[in-house]
Amino acid sequence: MKKFVNNVDHMLVESLTGFASAHSDLVDVQFEPTFVSRKHKSQQKVAIISGGGAGHEPLHAGYVGKGMLDAACPGQVFTSPTPDQMLAAAEAVHADKGVLFIVKNYAGDVMNFEMAAEMLPFEHATVLTSDDCAVVNSTYTTGRRGVAGTVIIEKCVGSLAESGADLAACKALGEKINLRTSSIGAALTSCTVPAVGRPTFDISDSELEMGVGIHGEPGRRREAMRAADAIVADMVNAIVHDFEAKQLPTQGDILLLVNGLGATPLMELYLIYNTAAKLLKEKGFNIARSLVGNYITAIDMAGASLTVCLLDQDIQQHWDSPVHTAGLRWGC
Amino acid sequence: MKKFVNNVDHMLVESLTGFASAHSDLVDVQFEPTFVSRKHKSQQKVAIISGGGAGHEPLHAGYVGKGMLDAACPGQVFTSPTPDQMLAAAEAVHADKGVLFIVKNYAGDVMNFEMAAEMLPFEHATVLTSDDCAVVNSTYTTGRRGVAGTVIIEKCVGSLAESGADLAACKALGEKINLRTSSIGAALTSCTVPAVGRPTFDISDSELEMGVGIHGEPGRRREAMRAADAIVADMVNAIVHDFEAKQLPTQGDILLLVNGLGATPLMELYLIYNTAAKLLKEKGFNIARSLVGNYITAIDMAGASLTVCLLDQDIQQHWDSPVHTAGLRWGC
Repeated sequence: MKKFVNNVDHMLVESLTGFASAHSDLVDVQFEPTFVSRKHKSQQKVAIISGGGAGHEPLHAGYVGKGMLDAACPGQVFTSPTPDQMLAAAEAVHADKGVLFIVKNYAGDVMNFEMAAEMLPFEHATVLTSDDCAVVNSTYTTGRRGVAGTVIIEKCVGSLAESGADLAACKALGEKINLRTSSIGAALTSCTVPAVGRPTFDISDSELEMGVGIHGEPGRRREAMRAADAIVADMVNAIVHDFEAKQLPTQGDILLLVNGLGATPLMELYLIYNTAAKLLKEKGFNIARSLVGNYITAIDMAGASLTVCLLDQDIQQHWDSPVHTAGLRWGC
Repeated sequence: MKKFVNNVDHMLVESLTGFASAHSDLVDVQFEPTFVSRKHKSQQKVAIISGGGAGHEPLHAGYVGKGMLDAACPGQVFTSPTPDQMLAAAEAVHADKGVLFIVKNYAGDVMNFEMAAEMLPFEHATVLTSDDCAVVNSTYTTGRRGVAGTVIIEKCVGSLAESGADLAACKALGEKINLRTSSIGAALTSCTVPAVGRPTFDISDSELEMGVGIHGEPGRRREAMRAADAIVADMVNAIVHDFEAKQLPTQGDILLLVNGLGATPLMELYLIYNTAAKLLKEKGFNIARSLVGNYITAIDMAGASLTVCLLDQDIQQHWDSPVHTAGLRWGC
């Protein structure tokens, strides 16, 4: 394993310190308990807090800022943050309209956010994200995994909270988007957790993992490596089947997110976008909004995920509203 | 080699088509000759055109848009674009105030942009970027290589052109920034050119290449892999020595760019930023502006580069001005 690291035990602190220093106009970082919060505390809005293991950057700290999260609680790489982090973050950013946790559906995250919620002296609610259509139940998950759809949920719920909406409305929007969003990933290589020092799984030069999780969890199956068009067609079909199974529309306006898992060149992501967009249009979708890049990663995995969110006027308006974070920025 | 690709001969066209489709509000793409241009042609400004081989995305097409480039001419991966591309792009975006080419100093790019310039029926000038302090002369270069400083030059010269400045002023600002900017990269792995199918160079698990080029060109030396702090200290020292050699200030306000070369996790880039910022502050610099992420890549290379630009009021103002491109966006 070769990485830019001094000591794996200090990697998170050093990286977060660098992050807070590079974005000192946007965020503050606190340690023990560790959380990243907006530089300028908001008044009179629902506080939106997310968190999870590190290694998925820019998720979540990269989405702290105007129009998105109020705070993010990072754990060690691929390790859940602890309840004291969520409690300290909530205490710091709470603004008299309650606290909404946005939690990706992994057992450790769910348990620790639940423990924090039970201890929280404020009105609170939770949105659990579970957009990964690859598998039901997984290595660290009962039910579907939360993956790149989480970025869309954090963006749109953040926008609604900014407008002064109440806790119930923010939770309802998050759950609506989660229902209307489906994702699937494909890995060409494993990731390597720094503290482990070797790849999470073995994969040969002639194979890919279809439906891989963002921690390198197994997907649907190990498949033969093939042309990008064929891989992307299977991913698009999986997402469309998921919408059909949920009796959701399989036409109309969508947001298409092509996400890199860490080591995939942008040139390949745009090639994937090209194929995915063509196939989705053929099926009757209209790609009203797009996002292509590394938005939720799996450390250094070569791979990509597709996410389709079925837009309505409400979701599209919140997607379009101004946002100013390290990872997403427009209108500001 | 595993990549998301259908046919290496079609990779550039498919990727550019996806890029133009994902950013159809910002850019148009033309093929044969191939160039990316702003969706909305500007009036009465110097036309800023750049280009170079693909594989460095988001450079250059990702910097076409308001406040930055008017057009970008991509070649095949690591291959110079041809003069007909620059001529067609200039014809399309020219707006009666002349054309400025921004060209990274590589022999093929220099030759082809020179040939285009000779045929250009408009007033024109060229800024040659050469910010890489690692080596003088290299595999594809006489003189220093142009690397990540090019992004800063494209941003600031784009801003000045947007304000209505003339060709001479735009060229002068580009050359001033090039003089005041120094970069150096370090590679942990090679890149793999899709049409070649194997890594450009061999490097063992215990080595790094200090001063690597963005096409995998040799750097200063092959070194033993070591802690990030030690690697970054050598990079910072190389940059400071370069400023000293040029009799430039080694204190004052700077822009610090930590750039990923394609396969380096953001978590590591922020760790590098943390160390670089600390060392530069100790030397008397004030980090007034920062940028961390993948801005000029070497396909799928694991590695990073540091760039320091010595700011003055002029440069800082043009860095801060609004920009709306696929790769850089603020104030819009």
